[in-house]
Amino acid sequence: MNTRDTLKTGKNGHLFIGGADCVELAEKYSTPLYVYDKKYIEDICGVYRDTLEKEYGEGRVLYASKAFSCKGIYKLIDKLGLGADVVSGGELYTALEGGISAQKLVMHGNNKTDAELKFAVESGVGVIVCDAYSEIERLSALCESKDTVQKIMLRVNPGVEAHTHHFVQTATPDSKFGFSMMNGDAVRAIELALSSKGVRLIGLHCHIGSQIFEKESFALAAEKMTDFYKKIKDELGYEFEALNLGGGFGIYYTDDDKKLSVEGYADYIRVIAQTLKKCILKKGLKKPFLFLEPGRSIVGEAGITLYTVGNIKNIIGIKNYAAVDGGMFESPRHALYGSRYTVVAANRMNDKATERYSIAGKCCESGDIIAEDCFLPELKRGDILAVLSTGAYNYSMASNYNRNAVPPVILVENGESDYLVKGQTYEDIARGDADCKLL
Amino acid sequence: MNTRDTLKTGKNGHLFIGGADCVELAEKYSTPLYVYDKKYIEDICGVYRDTLEKEYGEGRVLYASKAFSCKGIYKLIDKLGLGADVVSGGELYTALEGGISAQKLVMHGNNKTDAELKFAVESGVGVIVCDAYSEIERLSALCESKDTVQKIMLRVNPGVEAHTHHFVQTATPDSKFGFSMMNGDAVRAIELALSSKGVRLIGLHCHIGSQIFEKESFALAAEKMTDFYKKIKDELGYEFEALNLGGGFGIYYTDDDKKLSVEGYADYIRVIAQTLKKCILKKGLKKPFLFLEPGRSIVGEAGITLYTVGNIKNIIGIKNYAAVDGGMFESPRHALYGSRYTVVAANRMNDKATERYSIAGKCCESGDIIAEDCFLPELKRGDILAVLSTGAYNYSMASNYNRNAVPPVILVENGESDYLVKGQTYEDIARGDADCKLL
Repeated sequence: MNTRDTLKTGKNGHLFIGGADCVELAEKYSTPLYVYDKKYIEDICGVYRDTLEKEYGEGRVLYASKAFSCKGIYKLIDKLGLGADVVSGGELYTALEGGISAQKLVMHGNNKTDAELKFAVESGVGVIVCDAYSEIERLSALCESKDTVQKIMLRVNPGVEAHTHHFVQTATPDSKFGFSMMNGDAVRAIELALSSKGVRLIGLHCHIGSQIFEKESFALAAEKMTDFYKKIKDELGYEFEALNLGGGFGIYYTDDDKKLSVEGYADYIRVIAQTLKKCILKKGLKKPFLFLEPGRSIVGEAGITLYTVGNIKNIIGIKNYAAVDGGMFESPRHALYGSRYTVVAANRMNDKATERYSIAGKCCESGDIIAEDCFLPELKRGDILAVLSTGAYNYSMASNYNRNAVPPVILVENGESDYLVKGQTYEDIARGDADCKLL
Repeated sequence: MNTRDTLKTGKNGHLFIGGADCVELAEKYSTPLYVYDKKYIEDICGVYRDTLEKEYGEGRVLYASKAFSCKGIYKLIDKLGLGADVVSGGELYTALEGGISAQKLVMHGNNKTDAELKFAVESGVGVIVCDAYSEIERLSALCESKDTVQKIMLRVNPGVEAHTHHFVQTATPDSKFGFSMMNGDAVRAIELALSSKGVRLIGLHCHIGSQIFEKESFALAAEKMTDFYKKIKDELGYEFEALNLGGGFGIYYTDDDKKLSVEGYADYIRVIAQTLKKCILKKGLKKPFLFLEPGRSIVGEAGITLYTVGNIKNIIGIKNYAAVDGGMFESPRHALYGSRYTVVAANRMNDKATERYSIAGKCCESGDIIAEDCFLPELKRGDILAVLSTGAYNYSMASNYNRNAVPPVILVENGESDYLVKGQTYEDIARGDADCKLL
């Protein structure tokens, strides 16, 4: 079960994270509660940052902040020497409020609004990754009107689509993202960008998928991208100064996934760095500044969610349901993707797991399940459950479905804890409700 | 395309809803924008209310407010003579703030917290529908401590599971909700409730599914429930005074669904009323006060969502993507359930639909699609799209994924419009972000 040093069972049989007793955290902050382990984030960011520097040199690790965005996480990421990628005006706003320098931000998005482009340019965002012909034109016109030049990259599809345990190569990917490298779209976009005076094209960006364990997929992407860099150099006489290989490194949710130590993630960077160095040497390219964008792997295993068990139903011959005080409003990934999680009884870690449960939420919907097939001790009302690896895409996708409040988020370190995000009150949920003049 | 009188094409070729030009609404309020047609809600609520009274007599239509909850909708529902069902403390809070009398509220939930039960009892909620043995005990103890008695119903599983076009009968349903009528659980729960001094059991509640078009499913549920009422009368000597048959009436999303006029929904009530009257006569039961709980059918077709088209991608031989300024953060049903919608070009309704599009959102996720296989005129940047039948479970399930702001909700009537819910600002999204002392 232990996914890292800081997640362990205490002498009292309770689950501890970052030195804090989860049962005490549940009492102090109430449940549901998102808990992030500061040390895990520090350690893995350190591994990424240091390995990139040592194995490759010039580059920057960008935290893909869609995985978990709030002011505090940008502050922490900034302290750790990483940049961040943002994909909306809201993430950009939060990153700047969190104190990260705009220059260290890269802005993504398949459909940035004019307002978002303006916000990004006026904030001084380091790089904007363009995703459509018209976006290059609009951005260039905006920058020309402001007498400035924005550094951009273009999102392209290299025809490598990686999945957890395999990858596929496609000539023309079906995706709302990017320009295909195979059908001429990417070349046309490069030509457009090179002829647009308000932007300076520094390189290309690709992202081959999510939750990927096969490092060969990233090596293949590096090969494909450098092939294309060579082609552009040969055909257009233009050589890129930067390359962004995106993210997508897999994390541990259940025993179906590989379990890497924090140090194990260095291998992703190492394989990418070594492949890339080999490729540029072989193809006679200058060494590009390398951006990498891990998100899930930085915060996913760093986070757990604590719940209190409520109603329990044993439907003889069918299933045992243990309902908790959360649900798809704060943990939507099972409902969305059928995602699987590891669940433990945080208040009695040493009790034998003798029963199988479906962990249900409190939303008024049959599909409101947090996790299936969880082996646990026989549960009783008031037990504290911890769902592991919930740090990515849970808080960030949380809703007010059934007007349930989004739970608080806390950070823990050496047994200390404090809010990253305060929990909502009923007043917060209804804050926008207006006094409609038609009623 | 026209799903009702108030949704029509104006002489200028624009889509109108409730007498308001959708293109003007998009300009005035910006997009994305949720728009609700007051007249549709008034009409269908009138049909439900009047048909129940005429065809059955004693009863109450409860708006299943999880479909769309905000202060204004409760105010409107209250004016129209309906009650509401709420499934959380947040919905209860909003309903009371909306001015609906607590006595007209029914509280559901498979896992109500102690705080929610206390809130409901102290507010004077009309009926609480209990969903677990321990809930009956906890609620009774709470009421005894307050020297009050709470009217309750029990949620049961009649073994009828209806789907859009068929139903299945199961002996022991796999559900996190309710007590099975088949395996003795419901009888045990009734005995427990009858022996609990703080609660008064007035009847049973069942809900057989969602988006159901087959009225026979509801007739079957009425038969099963009255069979069970007879059994309880015979075996326990107790006769219930009320019955709650839930909701689940189907609405029109695409041409795969039946299209009913507003008046057509009277047939659901009529079939239920007639079956129920026949059953109680035949089985010698006293006529129960009848609760019905439509939600989706009250607000679903009443609502549309307006978007502005941004980047368009024609991937030759694959697909055309039109990206809009919304996405799964405000329209999560395609991502969650693969739901289908009808989409129209609101600014040129008379143009011929010659192309097929996937309508993509702006979230940084491949699965962020709002609707697939939409036949539309050849789109260009700036076109206004309207997605129809978005009034149920879109705003209510909206999130801040990618820190996108939840859009405003407006009500329209006779060409007039005003906010039901104000749109979020970036400040609203980051309101809870704390100054963490560990950073």
